[in-house]
Amino acid sequence: MYAVIMAGGKGTRFWPRSRERMPKHLLDIISEKTILQETVERIKPLIPEGKIFVVTGASHVAELKRQLPELPGENIIIEPVGRNTAPCIGLAALHIRHRDPKAVMVVLPSDHLIIDEKRFRVILKAAARTARDGEHLVTVGIEPTAPETGYGYLEMGAQAATVAGEEVFQVKAIREKPNTKLARSYIKKGTFLWNSGMFIWKAETILAAIERHLPDLHAGLAKIERALGTAREQAVVKKVYGELKGISIDYGVMEKAKNVLILKGAFGWSDVGSWDALWEVEKKDASGLVHKGPGPFIDIGAKNSLVSSRKLTVLVGVEDLIVVETKDALMICKRGASQRVREVVEALTERNLNRYL
Amino acid sequence: MYAVIMAGGKGTRFWPRSRERMPKHLLDIISEKTILQETVERIKPLIPEGKIFVVTGASHVAELKRQLPELPGENIIIEPVGRNTAPCIGLAALHIRHRDPKAVMVVLPSDHLIIDEKRFRVILKAAARTARDGEHLVTVGIEPTAPETGYGYLEMGAQAATVAGEEVFQVKAIREKPNTKLARSYIKKGTFLWNSGMFIWKAETILAAIERHLPDLHAGLAKIERALGTAREQAVVKKVYGELKGISIDYGVMEKAKNVLILKGAFGWSDVGSWDALWEVEKKDASGLVHKGPGPFIDIGAKNSLVSSRKLTVLVGVEDLIVVETKDALMICKRGASQRVREVVEALTERNLNRYL
Repeated sequence: MYAVIMAGGKGTRFWPRSRERMPKHLLDIISEKTILQETVERIKPLIPEGKIFVVTGASHVAELKRQLPELPGENIIIEPVGRNTAPCIGLAALHIRHRDPKAVMVVLPSDHLIIDEKRFRVILKAAARTARDGEHLVTVGIEPTAPETGYGYLEMGAQAATVAGEEVFQVKAIREKPNTKLARSYIKKGTFLWNSGMFIWKAETILAAIERHLPDLHAGLAKIERALGTAREQAVVKKVYGELKGISIDYGVMEKAKNVLILKGAFGWSDVGSWDALWEVEKKDASGLVHKGPGPFIDIGAKNSLVSSRKLTVLVGVEDLIVVETKDALMICKRGASQRVREVVEALTERNLNRYL
Repeated sequence: MYAVIMAGGKGTRFWPRSRERMPKHLLDIISEKTILQETVERIKPLIPEGKIFVVTGASHVAELKRQLPELPGENIIIEPVGRNTAPCIGLAALHIRHRDPKAVMVVLPSDHLIIDEKRFRVILKAAARTARDGEHLVTVGIEPTAPETGYGYLEMGAQAATVAGEEVFQVKAIREKPNTKLARSYIKKGTFLWNSGMFIWKAETILAAIERHLPDLHAGLAKIERALGTAREQAVVKKVYGELKGISIDYGVMEKAKNVLILKGAFGWSDVGSWDALWEVEKKDASGLVHKGPGPFIDIGAKNSLVSSRKLTVLVGVEDLIVVETKDALMICKRGASQRVREVVEALTERNLNRYL
C-alpha cells in the first residue's frame, strides 16, 4: 500500500499567508504543523514514509524537504509544470508501478482537514482492500453536513459489497459544483456525497483506465515510463509533461469509468478552500472569534471574526471580519467575501507589486 | 504678542499611533508634519518663534525639541504633572508677564486642525487687539457646522464692538458638552458657537481673573513667581504645582468671569479628538476611503474607511472601519466606535501589556 500526496497547489486563496513560493499546504494555518505535515502524519500509521510519494512543483521541493525531513528524496515526484490531477496521478502511478507492479495506491490531496483521523484510516484501509482486486477505481465520498456549493458531489447507487465491515456503493453519477438550489436537492435526497478528491486503486488499474479514457495522456506516460530510472528521465519528463493537456481525474476518468466504487466518509472533513472555510472549521470562542497568533489579541466587543497575526491585534466593535497580518502585508476581508482574495492577487499583478505575490 | 501652546495631551485616543511617550500632537497623523509643528507654523506669521511658549510634560521635552529645533529652550515650560488647563495657563502667564509685563498672550491647544490659516490669523489679530485694553478675557467660538455633542458651546450675547472689522460679542453662557437634543436646539438658535479652547488676553488680566476666581491657584502661582529665574525655580514648581488642584480654565474662570468677549471663527476647525473625527476631516476618495501610508493600499470593494498603515494593506468588501497598523500593533475599529479606544488602553494595562501603552 502506497500513498500519493498531491502537493501542486498554488498560493492564491490564502493570500497574504500563502504566496507563489508558499502555497497553502506548506502553511501552518490550521495547527502548529503545516497542513502537508498533518497529511503525512495522518497517513503514517497506515503507510510508512518510505512508501509515501509527494508530487509537487520544482520551486517547492526545498521547503517540502525541510518540512518532511524523513521522506526519502526519491519519493518526491517533480511536476515540471502543473497539468491538473489526471497527469499528476498518472505520473505517480508510473513511479509506483515501477517500484511495485501490484501496489495499491492511495491518492490524497495535501491540503485538507480531517478531524477523526482514526476513522479516516479505517475507511482508507477498507477502500484499499476493495481496490485490491484490480477491477475497481475506489473513491471516498464525504457525508455532507450542509448544501455546500463549493464541492463536487458523488451520487451513490446500490450497495455493491461490505468490505471489512464498511459499506461499498456503486456510483450513479459524478456531479460538478452545484448551485444552491441543486445542492439543497442533493442533500434532501440523502444519496449524495461530497467529492473528497481521495482515490484508492491499484497503480495498474488507474493506468489501464487512463489508457482507455485518456489515450493521449497514456501515450505520454508511456514515453516517460521508458525513461524512468535512466539518465534521460528528467529531460523526458520535462519535455513530455509540458506537452500534456491539463485535465482533472474526475472529468477525464472518473465520470467516464464504469468500475467506480464509493465508501462513505464521516470523519469531519473540509478542503479548507478559503479564509471563510477556515473560520468555519476552527474552534471559536463565545463571541465567534478565532485568534491565531503568535501576536497577542484583545477583543473589545468584536464578533464572528478570524484573526491571524504576528503583532498585537485589537478588534473594537467589529464583526464578520477576516484579519490576516504577515511580515509584509495586511488584509482585512469581510467574512463571506474571501473568494475575492483572488482579485487581490490580480490587483497586485496589475500594479506590479510582484514582491507580494 | 506671545503665544502659549498647551501640549500636555495624553496618548490614548489615537492608540496605537499615540502612546504615553508620543501623544497626538507629536504625531503626523494629519499631514507630513506633526500636529504640533502645524500649530507652530500656523502662528509664526503672527508671532515669531522667540515669543512662542510651549507647556508640556517632562517626558515629552526631548521629542518636542526634536520637532521644534528653532524654539528657544527657555520657551519650553515644563509641567511636573498634568493639572488641567487653569494651572497650565496660569504658569505660562507667569512666565510671559515675567518677560514682558504688558504682554498679550494667545493660548492655543497644540492638537487642533485649522483649514483656513489666514482667516485664523486675522481673527487672532483682532482678538489680540480686543484684549489689549487689559479689561477682557477674549475667546474664539467656532461657527458650528453640525450639532456636535463632543464640544462645549459658547452662547453669544449682544455685540460689544467691532475690532479691526471683526464683530466682537458679549458671552451669555458657557455650556458643557450637550446631548444630541440640546445640541440640535443650540444649532437652531444660531447664537451658539463651539468652544475652541483658544484664549486671548493680557497675562496680567488672566492672572487677575485667577486671583479672583481661583484664589488657591493664585496663591500657588505667587509662590512659583517668587522663584522664577532663581536656582530654586525647578524645585518650587515641582512642589507647588504638584499640590495644585486640577481644574479647567473654562470651569474655573471663564464660566464665572463677567468680562469675557467672543470673536466668531469660521475657518474650518476640528479638535480631531478621535480616529472617527480624523476620518471626518480628511479628504476621501469616491468610496469614502482615506489612506495614510507609507504602505501601499489596495481597495477591493471597500467603503467609508480609514487606513493608517506601514505595510501593504488590502481591504476586501469591508465598510466603516478604522484600520491602524504600527510597528508593534494593529487595531481594527468600527467607524463610530473609536471612543472605545480608551477601553483598549485599559485592557492593555489590565493585562500588563505595558510595552504597548
